[in-house]
Amino acid sequence: MNFASDNSYAAHPAVLAALSDANSGAVMGYGADPVTARAEDAIRALLEAPDAVVRFVATGTAANALVCAQLSPPYGRIYCHEDAHIETSECAAPEFFAHGAKLVTLPGMGGKLVPHTLSQALQVGAHGGLNGGRNALVSITNTTEWGTVYTPVEVAALSAVVQQAAVPLHMDGARFANAVASLGCSAADLTWRAGIDALCLGGTKNGAMAAEAVVFFDPAQAEGFDYRRKQAGHVFSKNRFLAAQMLALSVDGLWLDLARQANAKAAHLAEAVTQGGGQLLQPVQSNAVFATIPARTHARARAAGAIYHLWPDKSAEGLDPVPLRLVCAWDTPDGDVEALAAILRG
Amino acid sequence: MNFASDNSYAAHPAVLAALSDANSGAVMGYGADPVTARAEDAIRALLEAPDAVVRFVATGTAANALVCAQLSPPYGRIYCHEDAHIETSECAAPEFFAHGAKLVTLPGMGGKLVPHTLSQALQVGAHGGLNGGRNALVSITNTTEWGTVYTPVEVAALSAVVQQAAVPLHMDGARFANAVASLGCSAADLTWRAGIDALCLGGTKNGAMAAEAVVFFDPAQAEGFDYRRKQAGHVFSKNRFLAAQMLALSVDGLWLDLARQANAKAAHLAEAVTQGGGQLLQPVQSNAVFATIPARTHARARAAGAIYHLWPDKSAEGLDPVPLRLVCAWDTPDGDVEALAAILRG
Amino acid sequence: MNFASDNSYAAHPAVLAALSDANSGAVMGYGADPVTARAEDAIRALLEAPDAVVRFVATGTAANALVCAQLSPPYGRIYCHEDAHIETSECAAPEFFAHGAKLVTLPGMGGKLVPHTLSQALQVGAHGGLNGGRNALVSITNTTEWGTVYTPVEVAALSAVVQQAAVPLHMDGARFANAVASLGCSAADLTWRAGIDALCLGGTKNGAMAAEAVVFFDPAQAEGFDYRRKQAGHVFSKNRFLAAQMLALSVDGLWLDLARQANAKAAHLAEAVTQGGGQLLQPVQSNAVFATIPARTHARARAAGAIYHLWPDKSAEGLDPVPLRLVCAWDTPDGDVEALAAILRG
Amino acid sequence: MNFASDNSYAAHPAVLAALSDANSGAVMGYGADPVTARAEDAIRALLEAPDAVVRFVATGTAANALVCAQLSPPYGRIYCHEDAHIETSECAAPEFFAHGAKLVTLPGMGGKLVPHTLSQALQVGAHGGLNGGRNALVSITNTTEWGTVYTPVEVAALSAVVQQAAVPLHMDGARFANAVASLGCSAADLTWRAGIDALCLGGTKNGAMAAEAVVFFDPAQAEGFDYRRKQAGHVFSKNRFLAAQMLALSVDGLWLDLARQANAKAAHLAEAVTQGGGQLLQPVQSNAVFATIPARTHARARAAGAIYHLWPDKSAEGLDPVPLRLVCAWDTPDGDVEALAAILRG
Repeated sequence: MNFASDNSYAAHPAVLAALSDANSGAVMGYGADPVTARAEDAIRALLEAPDAVVRFVATGTAANALVCAQLSPPYGRIYCHEDAHIETSECAAPEFFAHGAKLVTLPGMGGKLVPHTLSQALQVGAHGGLNGGRNALVSITNTTEWGTVYTPVEVAALSAVVQQAAVPLHMDGARFANAVASLGCSAADLTWRAGIDALCLGGTKNGAMAAEAVVFFDPAQAEGFDYRRKQAGHVFSKNRFLAAQMLALSVDGLWLDLARQANAKAAHLAEAVTQGGGQLLQPVQSNAVFATIPARTHARARAAGAIYHLWPDKSAEGLDPVPLRLVCAWDTPDGDVEALAAILRG
Repeated sequence: MNFASDNSYAAHPAVLAALSDANSGAVMGYGADPVTARAEDAIRALLEAPDAVVRFVATGTAANALVCAQLSPPYGRIYCHEDAHIETSECAAPEFFAHGAKLVTLPGMGGKLVPHTLSQALQVGAHGGLNGGRNALVSITNTTEWGTVYTPVEVAALSAVVQQAAVPLHMDGARFANAVASLGCSAADLTWRAGIDALCLGGTKNGAMAAEAVVFFDPAQAEGFDYRRKQAGHVFSKNRFLAAQMLALSVDGLWLDLARQANAKAAHLAEAVTQGGGQLLQPVQSNAVFATIPARTHARARAAGAIYHLWPDKSAEGLDPVPLRLVCAWDTPDGDVEALAAILRG
Repeated sequence: MNFASDNSYAAHPAVLAALSDANSGAVMGYGADPVTARAEDAIRALLEAPDAVVRFVATGTAANALVCAQLSPPYGRIYCHEDAHIETSECAAPEFFAHGAKLVTLPGMGGKLVPHTLSQALQVGAHGGLNGGRNALVSITNTTEWGTVYTPVEVAALSAVVQQAAVPLHMDGARFANAVASLGCSAADLTWRAGIDALCLGGTKNGAMAAEAVVFFDPAQAEGFDYRRKQAGHVFSKNRFLAAQMLALSVDGLWLDLARQANAKAAHLAEAVTQGGGQLLQPVQSNAVFATIPARTHARARAAGAIYHLWPDKSAEGLDPVPLRLVCAWDTPDGDVEALAAILRG
Repeated sequence: MNFASDNSYAAHPAVLAALSDANSGAVMGYGADPVTARAEDAIRALLEAPDAVVRFVATGTAANALVCAQLSPPYGRIYCHEDAHIETSECAAPEFFAHGAKLVTLPGMGGKLVPHTLSQALQVGAHGGLNGGRNALVSITNTTEWGTVYTPVEVAALSAVVQQAAVPLHMDGARFANAVASLGCSAADLTWRAGIDALCLGGTKNGAMAAEAVVFFDPAQAEGFDYRRKQAGHVFSKNRFLAAQMLALSVDGLWLDLARQANAKAAHLAEAVTQGGGQLLQPVQSNAVFATIPARTHARARAAGAIYHLWPDKSAEGLDPVPLRLVCAWDTPDGDVEALAAILRG
C-alpha cells in the first residue's frame, strides 16, 4: 500500500520491451542512432510541433535546471510558484546550472501562479535596476505541485502577462500526461498554442524508468543546448535507451492511458476521503490527493501498512485531522487503492 | 539637499591624505606591503581580535558574496532577512559566488531576524533531506536595511540558535560603524563576543572611497579565502590603496566620529518628521529615517530640491502620506539637514 | 562491422534481466530501495572496500565531473594527462561542476602520467602563489585513453608523488574492467591499495545501458556528495534501475568476463594489424587498438563496411599509412572481428 | 631599486588630484554621476569610438574575466597564448566567471599568437563536436606578457583568422598604453580598426591606483554587461573615484607620456644588459626587459639592493647566466635605473 510517490512504482512492460528492442546491433553513440531519431519525431508528433527541438535526459531536475540555464543569464530572475518543484525539491539545481540566477517565488492558490500577481512581480523586476537582476523566465508546473491543473485558457492568460515582459515561459511537465489526461485537451493546446516556449515532458512518473523530454518549441531558443547538456553530464553515450523509453510511452497513446489510470485511482481515493469525513485541501484533478483526514483514520491506515507522506512534512504527525498527500501511479494495485479507500471511508 | 544614500557623499579628507601618504616609493604588490599590514592590524585591534584574518575588498557586494561562497557549499541554504541587502540589492551575487547556494528569506520586524522564526526555518532545512539543500550559513545585517540596530544581546540570542544548527553566523556590516556608534558598545561585543563568525566591516558608507574589510574571527574558516578573492578579481595589485582607506578610518576613532555625525543628522530629521505630523516607520537608531510624511510636505521638499527615495520604490509617488527613506552621511551639510527639517516640520 | 566505440554496442542480457527483476512492486525512491543497497554492497565487495561510499550515476562525464567538484575548490588545479577524457571529451564538465577549477595537462607516453613530470608540475603549482590556483587533485585514467593500462606498481608510484603534494588521487575507470582483466590483478590492488582515493567505475562500456559507480574509499571525502549529485540532476528517483545494472555486472565476475572478451577481440585485431604490415601506435593492453595501416588496407576495410575513427580525427583521411582507432566491445560479433582481421592481414 | 613590477609603483599626482576634485558635493551613486560620464566619454574619444560601451572596474583580472564571461558561454573555448595573463596569473578567474569555459592555450614566439597556429586550433575546435566545447573567443595581450607588442598589421592578421571562425577578438591591454607609446600608432588603429571587439584598457600599471576600462566596440556585445559586473561585485557605489582615475590619465595624453617614460627606462636597461654581456630574451618593445645576465652581475645587483623577479620563477636561482625580468614604471627613479644599468654594464 504505497502512496508515497508515483516514482515508487514500476516501469511499464512496453518500456522494458522497448529497451530490449533497442538492444540489438551496433549503432553510433550520443544520439546519432535511429531510435533517438524516431523518439524525437514521436514527441514532436505528440505535440503537433514539427519544428520543435527535442532532447532526452534522465531526471526531471536535469530537465528543468538545464532549461533554466538555457533561458536565463546568471543575473536573471526566474519567477515561479513558491511551492514549485524547482524551488522546493531540486536542491538549488536551477541556481547551480544557471550560475546564480534567482528564483523569485510567488503565492497562488492550488499551486498556480495568478496573472495579476505575476504581472506585478514582473513589473517590480523590470524597475529594479541592477539591484535585483533582470527578468529572465517564468516557470509554471502542470500538473502543479498541489495536484491541480492549469487549463489552456489559464496558461494563455499567464502567457499574455509573460509576453508583455518579453521573457519566455517554461512548463515543468513532470506530470504533464496527468494534466492532459485530466483536461482531455491536446498537448499542443496546453503548450505552444497557449504560449509555452519550453516544456519538460516527464516520462519517469508516467511509466518510464528514467526519461524526460526537453522540448523547445522555438529552435532558436535551443541554440547551444546540446553543449550545455553535454557539459552537465546529461548526454548519454547509449542515448537510444533514453529515447526508447519515451518512444514506448508515445505509441498508441500509452502515455495518456497510463495517466488516466493513475488519475482514476486518485479520484477514487478522493471520494473516499470525503465520504469518511476528511476534507480535500485541493480539488483532485490528477493523480494526487491532498487532504486532511481524522487522526484515527490515519492511525488505521498506518496500521494497515499504508505508506504516504504527511504534508508538508512529518511535523504534521500528531495533528487531528492529519494533513497528507496520497499519490497514485498507473500501476498502484487496485486492491491497494480499494483497501485504503475502505479505511478512508471510516 | 541629497538624502538618497550615504554613498552619494564624499570620502573624508583623512582618507584622501592616507592615499597620498601611501603613494610614495615602491612596494611589493598584492598586499605584501607595509600599509596593508598596518591596516589589517588596525582592524584586528579595533575588533580586539588579534587572531582574526582581515582582508580588504572594494565593494560591499564583493565582501558579502565572497563570505557566502567561503562559508556555504553550492548546495547550501543561506538564511537571511527578506529585506537583506544580499537578497534584494546585490543582483544575486551571493548565489553567483556560491555557485547556486539558495538564500532562504525570513520575515521580521524592523529588518531583524527573530530567533524563533530562524530556529524553525533551520529545523525545516535540517529535515528536508536532499530536496532543499543543506543548512550552511545565517546572515544578518547590522545596521539593518531598515535603519535599526541589533544589540549585542539580540545578536547573541540569534547566535545561540545558529550554533544549535552548527552553521556559522555572518554579519553584513556595511553600516557597522553606525550600529556601534548608536549602541555605544564595543565592536567586539557586537561581533565575536556575541557569536559572529565573519564580519563585513564597511568603509565606503563610513567615509572611504571604496573599501570594506572582510573579517574571519576563526582563521580556520578563512582557509583558501585568498585564492577565492583572487579568482573573483578582488585582489588589488596596489592593495595599499584599499588598506590605507580603512587604516585612516580606524585612527583615533574617526570611524565612530563619522558614524555619530551621520546618526545625529538622522535623529534631527526624525524629530522633524514627527513634529510635522509624519510617522516613523521604524525607530531611528542610525543614519536613516524611514517614515511617511504628508503629501504636501513631500511636494514642498521636492520643490526645494530635496533628493531622496520613496519607499520601497517610486511606485509610492502619489500616495498621501508618502513613504520615504532619508539617509544621512557624515558630511551631509548641516544646512541641508536643517533646511529639510524645517520643511518636514511643516 | 562497427569498431567506432564500445558504447556503440548493446547492454548484456543479464543487465536487461536485472532491470526486469527490479521492476516489481513499490519501493521508496531516490536510492532508499533494496536494489540500491545490494548494488552498493556488491561494488564494495568487488573492491574489498567495506567502508567505501558508493553512488551511481548514468554517465562517465557526470561521474568524473562530480568527483572533480567534490575534491577541488573553484580555485583548484586538477592535474591530468593531456589526452585525458576529462580534458578532451567532456565539454569542460569538470570546470563547470568545479566552478572554474583549472585542468593542468601533462604529457606522457601511452596516455600515462609520469611520476617525475607530475612531481615537477605539482611543485610549480605549489610555488605559484595565488596566480595559478592551488593544487587540488590528480586524475589518471585506467584503462588510459590510448588503450594502455597502469599497473598497480605504476599507480603506487604516482600515488607517492601525489601524497607528497597532499592532494587526492582520482581514477577515471570508464574502462576499469578492461584494465583489471588485462592485468589479472584485484580491483583493490589497482585502486585503494595503490593509493587511489576516488574511483569512477564504468558500467556503460562494460555492458550496462547507462550506469557508472562513483566510489570514495575514504567516506570523509564524500561529505556532502549526495547534495552535490542531487543539485546536478544526477540523483534518479527510480534509482534501482541504475543500481540494478551495476549489480548485474558484478555478479559472478560478469564484468571481468565481458572485459576479457572485449580485450581478446582487440588482441586479435592487433595481431592482424602487425601481420598486414601495419604498426601499433601503442601496446594493445585492453579493448582498443591504435595503429597505422596501409592506405589500401584502409580503403578495403571501408569498402567492406567497417566503421571506425581515424585518429585523432578525420583530418587523417588521405594519409598513407592511415592512423586509426579500433574499439571492441564484449559483443562485437566474432565474425566482424575476423572479417576485419582478414582485411588487415592484407 | 625596485624592478619587480610596474604595479609596485605609485599613482600619478594627477590621479590623486582628480580624486580630490571628484570628492566634493553629493552625487548619485553607481555611476550615475558626472565624473563617470566624462570619463566614459574621454575613453571613447581616446579610442575614436563614439559608440563604444565603456565601463570601469578596479582590477585587470576583473576586466578580463568579465569580458570572457560576457563573450563566451560556459561551454566555450577561449583561445589564448600559453603565457597569457588570463591563463597563468588570474587564478582561473576567466573559468570561474565564465562558468567553466575552457582556455585553449597556444604557443608562439614572444608571447604572440601566430595566425596559422590559431587558425588550425580554431578548426580543431570547430570540428570537435560536443566533446571539446564550442569556439567562443580569442584573446590576445598587448603589450604581451613578454614585453613585445603586436602591431596593427599583426592584430589585423589575427583578426582575419578570428573572423573566419565567427568569434569575437579580445585584447587584454593591461599595458595597452605601453604598446601604443611604443608603436606610435593610434589607439583606434591598434584596436577596432584592426578588428578588436573588446578591450581591457589598463590604468593601474599606467599610473592609476586601481582602475581599468572595459570597452566593447559593438554595443550589442555589451548587452547585459552591467548586470554581470554588478553580480560580480565590481560596480562601485562611489563609481566617480574609479572614473576619475581614468579621466586623469586621459587628459592631454598623460597616459602616453607615462608609458613613454616607462618604456624609455626599460630601453636604457636593455642597452646596459647587452653592453654587459647579457642577452635579451625578447626584443624590448615596452617597459619590460626579459634577459639573461651573468651570475656575477646578478649577485652584484642583488647586493646593491635591486629587486626583480627571476624568470619564470625563483627556481632559476643558481643558473649562470641568470634569466630575469626587469619592469619599469613611469616613476621608477632615474637614479635607480642608472644605478642598475651601471651594474648591468659590468
